[in-house]
Amino acid sequence: MEIKSKVGSRIREIREKNGISQKDLSYTADLDRSYIASVENGQRNISIVNLEKIAKALKVNLSELFQGV
Amino acid sequence: MEIKSKVGSRIREIREKNGISQKDLSYTADLDRSYIASVENGQRNISIVNLEKIAKALKVNLSELFQGV
Repeated sequence: MEIKSKVGSRIREIREKNGISQKDLSYTADLDRSYIASVENGQRNISIVNLEKIAKALKVNLSELFQGV
Repeated sequence: MEIKSKVGSRIREIREKNGISQKDLSYTADLDRSYIASVENGQRNISIVNLEKIAKALKVNLSELFQGV
């Protein structure tokens, strides 16, 4: 699986485990909901700045975010 | 410290620990040497695709790359 898909799946996994909706995540991370959806679907070559925003919103550090990726 | 600087410092740290030059890293990761230098200096909002190239070239996984970041 391509890295963009692996990261997207991992973000979705943590988000769902935490019981957070895409809407909530987009609000907390200050990113568009459609952007979050496309990241989770592996369609974005996400940057480190946005990865950090998502990690913070999911209350994990970046090392945890990449666990198993 | 900003995330771009933190990631850059971490990449430099692992590269130097492994005794690899920027030139070697740029060759193995198939990225420009000037790009590697600017990433290490915290000047780039690096994407996940390039982070993976650098991690592979440094022989660490992404979770290790972000250890302590």
